[in-house]
Amino acid sequence: MVMLNNISTAVQYTPAGRVYNFGAGPAMLPAKVMQRAQSEFMDWHGTGISVMEMSHRCAEFISIAEQSESDLREILNIPRNYKVLFLQGGATSQFAMVPMNISQAKDTVDYFHTGHWSDKALKEARRFCKVNVSATDEKNGFRSIPKVATWNLSKNAAYVYYTGNETIHGVEFHSIPDVGKVPLVTDMTSNLLTRPLDVSRFGIIFAGAQKNIGPAGLVVVIIREDLIGKARQGIPGLYDYAGHAREKSMVNTPPTYSWYIAGLVLQWIKEQGGLVAMEEKALRKSGKLYRAIDNSGFYINSVDVSCRSRMNVPFTLADESLYDEFVARGKAVSTMPCRKKGWTTSLYLCGSLNGVTVNITDSSHLFGMTE
Amino acid sequence: MVMLNNISTAVQYTPAGRVYNFGAGPAMLPAKVMQRAQSEFMDWHGTGISVMEMSHRCAEFISIAEQSESDLREILNIPRNYKVLFLQGGATSQFAMVPMNISQAKDTVDYFHTGHWSDKALKEARRFCKVNVSATDEKNGFRSIPKVATWNLSKNAAYVYYTGNETIHGVEFHSIPDVGKVPLVTDMTSNLLTRPLDVSRFGIIFAGAQKNIGPAGLVVVIIREDLIGKARQGIPGLYDYAGHAREKSMVNTPPTYSWYIAGLVLQWIKEQGGLVAMEEKALRKSGKLYRAIDNSGFYINSVDVSCRSRMNVPFTLADESLYDEFVARGKAVSTMPCRKKGWTTSLYLCGSLNGVTVNITDSSHLFGMTE
Repeated sequence: MVMLNNISTAVQYTPAGRVYNFGAGPAMLPAKVMQRAQSEFMDWHGTGISVMEMSHRCAEFISIAEQSESDLREILNIPRNYKVLFLQGGATSQFAMVPMNISQAKDTVDYFHTGHWSDKALKEARRFCKVNVSATDEKNGFRSIPKVATWNLSKNAAYVYYTGNETIHGVEFHSIPDVGKVPLVTDMTSNLLTRPLDVSRFGIIFAGAQKNIGPAGLVVVIIREDLIGKARQGIPGLYDYAGHAREKSMVNTPPTYSWYIAGLVLQWIKEQGGLVAMEEKALRKSGKLYRAIDNSGFYINSVDVSCRSRMNVPFTLADESLYDEFVARGKAVSTMPCRKKGWTTSLYLCGSLNGVTVNITDSSHLFGMTE
Repeated sequence: MVMLNNISTAVQYTPAGRVYNFGAGPAMLPAKVMQRAQSEFMDWHGTGISVMEMSHRCAEFISIAEQSESDLREILNIPRNYKVLFLQGGATSQFAMVPMNISQAKDTVDYFHTGHWSDKALKEARRFCKVNVSATDEKNGFRSIPKVATWNLSKNAAYVYYTGNETIHGVEFHSIPDVGKVPLVTDMTSNLLTRPLDVSRFGIIFAGAQKNIGPAGLVVVIIREDLIGKARQGIPGLYDYAGHAREKSMVNTPPTYSWYIAGLVLQWIKEQGGLVAMEEKALRKSGKLYRAIDNSGFYINSVDVSCRSRMNVPFTLADESLYDEFVARGKAVSTMPCRKKGWTTSLYLCGSLNGVTVNITDSSHLFGMTE
């Protein structure tokens, strides 16, 4: 009970004087990006109009789009034989686009089942092809990534899929699975741009923007060119990567303002020192939280240490009888939904929305956005 | 040649002191909306964070979402048996969602073919069912809506589809086609909220936001409840209206910031006097342009007067030999792409982007956004 009383309910400020917001996404954006966007909100670079009001076909917006792609290519060192797409629909749209584009109905595809998001992805894929679960830790409550020796990879999978970081379960792949020559697909919505990455190991990398890249409403897709142009018949036109690649993500009006903010974030990442600096930041912040939890005697993080997430740190209470009071106090200091769900306490106690910050939360989004 | 010299190349300002921007979309937003959004960009209502950084699950964002739906329902007087959805993917996503949700592969669906956008919509629908072209003015270059007596409506169409306003061809339906009891579907991307509308006449109304409602990256769908829950098997999860209706447009992270700006625009429309005021404004502005064109002896608008658009006013030159010089001068005063394409001169001479406004353009978007 002593520990419960130690939860801070005072407003916490960032070095830039902003309220801390540990929401997992839409997540906090860098203060410098927000200040710049606000200053040029009504008049972008002397044009007299807002980026929000610009035609996506005008030279100004095209320069914004090209710069953002160029910066992303530089930051991730993306090889030339990959296309970069800025699309709508969120990462969830990719759960269907991937099988619709790089598998046929008769094909088997391999999925690593490591938590909530890979579970959603493989259930969506089952609508379109045969899904082989290569490895799962479901019975154990998704607390680890099964050992390589236990993986059951198909002989002729159309692709292998894994979730780079499981935002709810706090399980992160710290190395890229070796799947031979089969195209490897990854959802890195919650950990893209948080450390250097060898893009050449992948067939498709995608990430919803609202955690590490920019505002909601944008999903970034990095796709090897030989995987484009093989979409199935009878899918929605917008679900074919080929059109987006050909039209430079402008088959229809793109989410221009979100794209522009993402461009500002990419510039900020470069200024910060790129992905090496982002990785240091993620390790420093998550390390601080894991040390606090592990030394508390009150909180428990039961994810296998080898795959603990650097992005989000779920916890349970050592004394389960305290849950109800803990949730009740959480509700009192936060406008976010507080609920007890499964093995992890889904307490969104970040609560910066009403000016209150609780320092430990299961959805702490620990990437560079909260500086 | 005299007329060419009369094209103004001086910067033109709105009463609020903003540069005029006649771009068809993403279009100009009301100055009051932009000023308010800028003022609360970093700190929404004392929360200390931006709407862009808010979780879509928090009480604050849910209040924004609910208010915007409530305002849209009030403005359009939407009956209770209709759902209002705020989705991603643009109007183009609806070109596939409509047939995937309210028709089967064996069904025939009826399309009015009145210009560029209905052409795109019916081509997409052909992937999913049999399309009967109920009426077309293609041979005449899309200058009119064929007379009712010539319509070829199917006996058992799953639905009838028309484009409320053709943004490129400048053809607008000024009354709702009578199609009996067959569900009527309309793409009102460029004319929703520009006059009062009897929503009860429709099965589905949809509109990309970037012309009359808010920023790009959002599409508003108004759908009669009995049409929900009939989606085909094997479609992407996000293409089923049922999930979006059940989850209040939060199946996955919605485009929160675009939704918020749309909410501000809806409040502004109410303050302006609702759709009666919007209609007066559209008639006043388009009337001014048509009078200028018709009296010029230099420009020609050849759309049948009965279906001239109040939203966009395409034109040709009476003397075709002047096209090349006209295009060249257009390029000189605008950063927008200038090209000669088909029967309409696709000159984006609005050019506010480089501080230059030419008063007559084929993509003048004449709705309330340019006050």
